[in-house]
Amino acid sequence: MRYFLLVVLLFTNLVSEAQLTDEQFIRKIYDEALAKGQSYEMLEHLCTKIGPRLSGSPGAAAAVEWSRQVMQAYGFDSVWLQPVMVPIGTGQRNWPHCQFKKLGSETVNICALGGSVGTGAGGVLANVVEVKTWDELRQLGEKGVKGKIVFFNRPMDPKLIPMFSSYGGAVDQRANGASEAAKLGAIGVIVRSMGVNLEDYPHTGSLRYALNIPKIPAVAIATRHAEVLSELLKDDKDLKFYFETHCETLPDAPSFNVIGELKGTERSEEIIVVGGHLDSWDLGQGAHDDGAGCVQSIEVLRLFKALGYKPKRTIRAVMFMNEENGLRGGVEYANQAKLKNEKHIAAIESDRGGFTPRGFTVPTQATAREKVRSWKPLLEPYGLSDFSQEGGGADISPLAPQGVPLMGYLPDSQRYFNFHHTAEDTFDKVDKRELELGAAAMAAIIYLIDRYGLD
Amino acid sequence: MRYFLLVVLLFTNLVSEAQLTDEQFIRKIYDEALAKGQSYEMLEHLCTKIGPRLSGSPGAAAAVEWSRQVMQAYGFDSVWLQPVMVPIGTGQRNWPHCQFKKLGSETVNICALGGSVGTGAGGVLANVVEVKTWDELRQLGEKGVKGKIVFFNRPMDPKLIPMFSSYGGAVDQRANGASEAAKLGAIGVIVRSMGVNLEDYPHTGSLRYALNIPKIPAVAIATRHAEVLSELLKDDKDLKFYFETHCETLPDAPSFNVIGELKGTERSEEIIVVGGHLDSWDLGQGAHDDGAGCVQSIEVLRLFKALGYKPKRTIRAVMFMNEENGLRGGVEYANQAKLKNEKHIAAIESDRGGFTPRGFTVPTQATAREKVRSWKPLLEPYGLSDFSQEGGGADISPLAPQGVPLMGYLPDSQRYFNFHHTAEDTFDKVDKRELELGAAAMAAIIYLIDRYGLD
Repeated sequence: MRYFLLVVLLFTNLVSEAQLTDEQFIRKIYDEALAKGQSYEMLEHLCTKIGPRLSGSPGAAAAVEWSRQVMQAYGFDSVWLQPVMVPIGTGQRNWPHCQFKKLGSETVNICALGGSVGTGAGGVLANVVEVKTWDELRQLGEKGVKGKIVFFNRPMDPKLIPMFSSYGGAVDQRANGASEAAKLGAIGVIVRSMGVNLEDYPHTGSLRYALNIPKIPAVAIATRHAEVLSELLKDDKDLKFYFETHCETLPDAPSFNVIGELKGTERSEEIIVVGGHLDSWDLGQGAHDDGAGCVQSIEVLRLFKALGYKPKRTIRAVMFMNEENGLRGGVEYANQAKLKNEKHIAAIESDRGGFTPRGFTVPTQATAREKVRSWKPLLEPYGLSDFSQEGGGADISPLAPQGVPLMGYLPDSQRYFNFHHTAEDTFDKVDKRELELGAAAMAAIIYLIDRYGLD
Repeated sequence: MRYFLLVVLLFTNLVSEAQLTDEQFIRKIYDEALAKGQSYEMLEHLCTKIGPRLSGSPGAAAAVEWSRQVMQAYGFDSVWLQPVMVPIGTGQRNWPHCQFKKLGSETVNICALGGSVGTGAGGVLANVVEVKTWDELRQLGEKGVKGKIVFFNRPMDPKLIPMFSSYGGAVDQRANGASEAAKLGAIGVIVRSMGVNLEDYPHTGSLRYALNIPKIPAVAIATRHAEVLSELLKDDKDLKFYFETHCETLPDAPSFNVIGELKGTERSEEIIVVGGHLDSWDLGQGAHDDGAGCVQSIEVLRLFKALGYKPKRTIRAVMFMNEENGLRGGVEYANQAKLKNEKHIAAIESDRGGFTPRGFTVPTQATAREKVRSWKPLLEPYGLSDFSQEGGGADISPLAPQGVPLMGYLPDSQRYFNFHHTAEDTFDKVDKRELELGAAAMAAIIYLIDRYGLD
């Protein structure tokens, strides 16, 4: 009797799978995601019950445990924690770190950059020199910079259409401004926030201190206040600015990547990764960056289970830890993959927010790239028409040297930098359908990769 | 000296225009719209200083005068008011018309449908019968419906990708529910709001009373409360619902379409219309519906002026009056065009919200349609890739019998029905860049039509 039932079940399964075209199965993925999706409820919990998740913080630890439990409750074949050492509290630890600072009669909203040293209780009080380019900084030289605060005020270019291009044209100031200014004797740095609109809230994000250069404190200033400061400096070259931050980087501490897996039925040794990063800055709730990517990745596996889809290859949802200020999770995942001689045939990251779909970034490998592009007709009815850019995401980038084809989910970018790295990146800024469409898009592309491979 | 200057200026102008390819000129349109655009500031004024603009209301009159002044201040060649008689206060006049109604222990948020008669002070108290289809209503028949309130509870289908398809599959209940129920003797109608998510606020919108059928009062109920009501009805077939509305339709009163024009330099008799509708429901601020379309239309002409572009054809920005509950402005505009024997070579409407661009709906005329589609490579870099649907917008539809090629600006539709016809349709729900990209998109397509025509 048991045997007979098994045969019937197997046969039913084979028939139903054989009957569905790719078009039909992708339609089923979207039906499930849009009518019975669970990504939005997951994100609500992650954002409003757990909240900010800076690496090494209690929030990050809670998010690790929560995502492990969620994936176990969904009955994925395996769920485990992958240990990784992470820096604690780089730059942002001492909440509240957003401080209103007096500037003449203006009140200015700042926040420390990630990784910055703090000023300590004495703060920094000094004259301000404004620059928009590295050339301007060099021309000022030691004479013009020494003992001063350098104010990097090159705006994101509003004329560029993809907002990541606009971000890319300004973020060098945040990343390298402190060390470049310190080389010339500056004692502090103010960076115009990486936001394209005029806003009252600052954007944090990592800086990189160069080796053997004094580490000076650096803060971001809200874009509207950057305009005010620039105006004031025109009239008053002797203007002094005061800011105070209390940041420190504590010794590394243990944390985890969280991994859930559906085991492949035919080629289980071939692994497809879908992921986002579980950590966030301690401003806001890390809703778009990158709670969205995490819950979408879990949802991909849940969708397959709900639809009774048994992947040929092994599909892993990975919640990476410490993308924002270290990338330790991404690096460790790639290390372990190499150590264990795992064969990853593709990795896809969602780390551009939970916005309405535009397409995917495609692998740099020519065969894989053209194969993905050949699927465009299947995906275009769902708003996925942009397959023009190459590349993946930060967390999966350490897999590149192993030759893994990397991709990224590409949502619309217009609103992303209203929220990115700010106190405004909260659950209520995410639209339910836009989030669900992203989860379905990733499930659709992973289904195609699972069926047809990328080689 | 004067003559010499004139020649130099003319020559400069000719050279600069001749030097620019279409690609370059479209790039200039976007540069101006994104770096120095004024659509967002216009919308802020229209929404927050003027507010709701129901036909015949003081708000609508203020919006007429404001948009006239704005277009005059920009120095368009002509700006005028086109008289049109509009109904006053259909369904919505007596603010506050959103009333919380007790339903057992539940408090329910309703609003009158546009055009509905009011219940008056006595309200309507009756048993409720729920239906999801017209078949279900017919099967209930007079026996099941007479003396009762009919509750139309077919949800918008979340599985459809373009939200207007989802809306189209449910809005017949709002449009025809009252008269279909009245034919069977119902004394009131509750319609599930046209929103895809579960929300606490109701959506209004027009109904149509059939001729010679008793006019019974109709209200929309928030989607979340529709679910609650449906659950309660399962346990209690004898449940009674009470609602009270005070709506009336006053005699027609004068109002206006507001028109601004740039005169064509070569074929001034050929007219291209770009427009939106100035009226809104009296819930919210009419930000996405359709303040966005109005300010984008004004911005199109402003962009051309700012760039020194002299159109060959005459380009008109038209703020139509009374789209929501009568379409009188659209009808009158088409009447006048016919009476004056005007030659409209194209009309484009923006009435799908101020969201991130997806494309355009294209004319039904084959030559015009294919011509528009041939421009796709010029527009795709700006996120305009969907040219799949045919049709225009409500206000320009009365031009169809004159053979005018009609088009619509097509923004992303995923968030539109979170706001449509609700108190949530406010300025803060519109993203600056998304709005600006729409204005630039319309300017780009009108530039191409102006240069190359559609025949």
